[in-house]
Amino acid sequence: MIRVTVWGENVHEQKSEKVRKVYPEGMHTVIAAGLAEDPEIKVRTATLQQPEHGLSAEVLAGTDVLTWWGHCAHKQVEDAVVERIQERVLGGMGIILLHSAHFSKIFKRLMGTSCALKWREAGEKERLWVTNPGHAIARGLGECFVLPNTEMYGEPFGVPTPDDVVFISWFEGGEVFRSGCTWRRGAGKVFYFRPGHETYPIFFDQNVKLVLKNAVKWAAPEGAWTKPLEAPNVPIEQAPEKLVQKGEKLHAPGQKGFK
Amino acid sequence: MIRVTVWGENVHEQKSEKVRKVYPEGMHTVIAAGLAEDPEIKVRTATLQQPEHGLSAEVLAGTDVLTWWGHCAHKQVEDAVVERIQERVLGGMGIILLHSAHFSKIFKRLMGTSCALKWREAGEKERLWVTNPGHAIARGLGECFVLPNTEMYGEPFGVPTPDDVVFISWFEGGEVFRSGCTWRRGAGKVFYFRPGHETYPIFFDQNVKLVLKNAVKWAAPEGAWTKPLEAPNVPIEQAPEKLVQKGEKLHAPGQKGFK
Amino acid sequence: MIRVTVWGENVHEQKSEKVRKVYPEGMHTVIAAGLAEDPEIKVRTATLQQPEHGLSAEVLAGTDVLTWWGHCAHKQVEDAVVERIQERVLGGMGIILLHSAHFSKIFKRLMGTSCALKWREAGEKERLWVTNPGHAIARGLGECFVLPNTEMYGEPFGVPTPDDVVFISWFEGGEVFRSGCTWRRGAGKVFYFRPGHETYPIFFDQNVKLVLKNAVKWAAPEGAWTKPLEAPNVPIEQAPEKLVQKGEKLHAPGQKGFK
Amino acid sequence: MIRVTVWGENVHEQKSEKVRKVYPEGMHTVIAAGLAEDPEIKVRTATLQQPEHGLSAEVLAGTDVLTWWGHCAHKQVEDAVVERIQERVLGGMGIILLHSAHFSKIFKRLMGTSCALKWREAGEKERLWVTNPGHAIARGLGECFVLPNTEMYGEPFGVPTPDDVVFISWFEGGEVFRSGCTWRRGAGKVFYFRPGHETYPIFFDQNVKLVLKNAVKWAAPEGAWTKPLEAPNVPIEQAPEKLVQKGEKLHAPGQKGFK
Repeated sequence: MIRVTVWGENVHEQKSEKVRKVYPEGMHTVIAAGLAEDPEIKVRTATLQQPEHGLSAEVLAGTDVLTWWGHCAHKQVEDAVVERIQERVLGGMGIILLHSAHFSKIFKRLMGTSCALKWREAGEKERLWVTNPGHAIARGLGECFVLPNTEMYGEPFGVPTPDDVVFISWFEGGEVFRSGCTWRRGAGKVFYFRPGHETYPIFFDQNVKLVLKNAVKWAAPEGAWTKPLEAPNVPIEQAPEKLVQKGEKLHAPGQKGFK
Repeated sequence: MIRVTVWGENVHEQKSEKVRKVYPEGMHTVIAAGLAEDPEIKVRTATLQQPEHGLSAEVLAGTDVLTWWGHCAHKQVEDAVVERIQERVLGGMGIILLHSAHFSKIFKRLMGTSCALKWREAGEKERLWVTNPGHAIARGLGECFVLPNTEMYGEPFGVPTPDDVVFISWFEGGEVFRSGCTWRRGAGKVFYFRPGHETYPIFFDQNVKLVLKNAVKWAAPEGAWTKPLEAPNVPIEQAPEKLVQKGEKLHAPGQKGFK
Repeated sequence: MIRVTVWGENVHEQKSEKVRKVYPEGMHTVIAAGLAEDPEIKVRTATLQQPEHGLSAEVLAGTDVLTWWGHCAHKQVEDAVVERIQERVLGGMGIILLHSAHFSKIFKRLMGTSCALKWREAGEKERLWVTNPGHAIARGLGECFVLPNTEMYGEPFGVPTPDDVVFISWFEGGEVFRSGCTWRRGAGKVFYFRPGHETYPIFFDQNVKLVLKNAVKWAAPEGAWTKPLEAPNVPIEQAPEKLVQKGEKLHAPGQKGFK
Repeated sequence: MIRVTVWGENVHEQKSEKVRKVYPEGMHTVIAAGLAEDPEIKVRTATLQQPEHGLSAEVLAGTDVLTWWGHCAHKQVEDAVVERIQERVLGGMGIILLHSAHFSKIFKRLMGTSCALKWREAGEKERLWVTNPGHAIARGLGECFVLPNTEMYGEPFGVPTPDDVVFISWFEGGEVFRSGCTWRRGAGKVFYFRPGHETYPIFFDQNVKLVLKNAVKWAAPEGAWTKPLEAPNVPIEQAPEKLVQKGEKLHAPGQKGFK
């Protein structure tokens, strides 16, 4: 079983009639239900409003893959929780960032870049092309799939060169976008997936649901990096090859390094 | 002319007799002098102790490549200055991180990872192998070069997979390290170079000086990304292809996106 | 079950007393036995001397991962078989290249580079460091492992920048090498693993056997690219968006593209 | 001065009235004239019909960057010339592949993959988006540029993940394509640029000419890998660290390695 925590900001669903019409019980509920269709995936949800945003150290320790949707409340996410998520990713947890999560604190922190892009909210058509047909995240899809109404995101996308680009989108209005991108950070796998605007029923779409199920399986830990933040000193007596101390030393024996 | 700002933390040079013996006028002074040997490079220095750490918006705007050495005072670097540097890198400025700068705020922010490593201060021998003989940063070097006394840094190095690895080090004590790594962040080029411990005369070494001169030329901007943090809305009337509004909109016309 | 075909050149084992002492029944037999320890792996072997080198289209179609060891007879491998393997890799089959297979026809073809390196046969000590602790291929290993007697391979290694470097070797004689490298070619995963000289019992080593079992699981197809060599024409009537023919055409309707 | 050799297949220009109307003196002539506008670039041309296709060892030795356009006569290019070009690229020469050169022998050899794609010849509109605004190849361009009539190329493009993607194309008919891709092979830089169908005046376009001038400057050698095909033995007496022979040896002293 892959243990997934679906995180939802859950703000627009409360405030906007338009969004509530599409997602009356919150977007996280629909995303979670889509994943739960797969017998290998075990899902729970967490939201901004919960203590520690529902992402205590214990919850994260029991999470193999975290999915993240946020939009208008990125700034309300506590830095301490963001750091905790980052450390868990470096240690091996997968993370899937959805749509407007491109500007979430955790994505910007993992990328080290602006994560900026162009956008337009015109309900236009989007066609996602599979650029990497053998990739695990594209399993079971055809050569492309269409979303009839989407918000447009356009290049340039301010991210480091992805390890793999699985989807590139064509937009009715004339733009393109790298809509499915993967990176590795420490032992953790990162997937950014573009579709998911809250005024359209994107997360009910069969192809989108398939992508997310595939992505969870791809992002599940394939190993671990224990204590990813540690910078251990190797004392001279424990050097793999025998050494004799030469030259000056800055640190006293046993002194920790500077961080 | 490539305009370089050499940034030095300049703390150990003031506090430690051992370091002062090697670098009586500060490490930044020696690094700057090495670069200034090249007629195409114009150098100035900046240090932690100056207002805004010597890195005002004006100084950064006039900097093509920034070099960074810090160790014990990483935490004293103001976050506002770190953000300013990051934005300038995304816009095109090159940045070269030296040795203990692996744990600097700016490097960790650009990488999105732990930047951790193993270490040992035994004055042991290091041999740097050129793994990418045609790379601009290796120009003029032989197949390897030796530093007789260094601090050891060992793998795993907690960074995203580099775009290119130019050097890999062999250590007398039995470890290895990816000692010359490049990444691109936005329009800016990033180079991490491992040698440079403050108790050894590393920055007087001819090969090290050559690497740094090469690296400055490699990292000099080859283009620019103006306003790298902006996420512009493309109104429907300005779409490259003619569009008709469909479906619901979350944003009022002219409303800014959420960050 | 992952279906593995272990390919062995099987020449030195017949000709050299030194090699036969270590591998009396051929290296492929020992490699296969190591893999067969894993209940998820089903192994068969194939050798140069068999018709089509034991790699008929049928055998390849039934192979999930191919392992390859060759040394003195690279040139005797038929080009038609090499092409068949390449097409199968592009379609999704994993391939693991061992030691002197760096100069095999199939590896050079998949890489597009020289695949050259330095070498020395002195029976020296090699220590392989895990540079990517969370990688599937490193699962269950410690931070490093030692082979007491190996042939040395030294940088520069003439390959395209790997997607991931899982191991870097330290050699007693002073060199380093990227000893575990991964690439993707089409839908297929490629792993090069350095150890494996025929005069030492490398493939009996517990850590080496673990690496190979891990690598097989990592390289098993995660998807497929059907007909990877095809360049299909999309007739104007089948364009995703409605089109009207404009300008001159070179090809008559239904004419195939040039290859 | 950057010394460029513009190679043209020069077959359709002779055979097809439609092509001759656009390129009466051959496509290579127009490509060369566009590059020659830049005072830093020195151009000569070579064609299939010349002895050694105009690419003798001497010509290649005097070439910093080679541009390649071919379509219907890929198979007529001699393998010996292809090998010579590959070795020169590994040694540092830049190479720029244009449009239908995706199926040229030299590109397929450098990539190791199918280099296949979808295509349609409908004279449709193409919009190339700059995905990497700070890249040297995009210097001086706006955020996108349009070609009113092009042949469509669609994803998936059967190439290894590019080091950088500089352009992604939007097509009127609904497809997308990674239209400007870079790789490094040995010391040589490789750029694939999609536009360039022979029935349209693509190489007269100002933006296309600018891209090619930029690409030549980017691809010019930044260093060299001398004797890239050599795999030198390091005799035990020349090991960087003192060694004593241990274990069995396969090779007699001074014997060459197997290729």
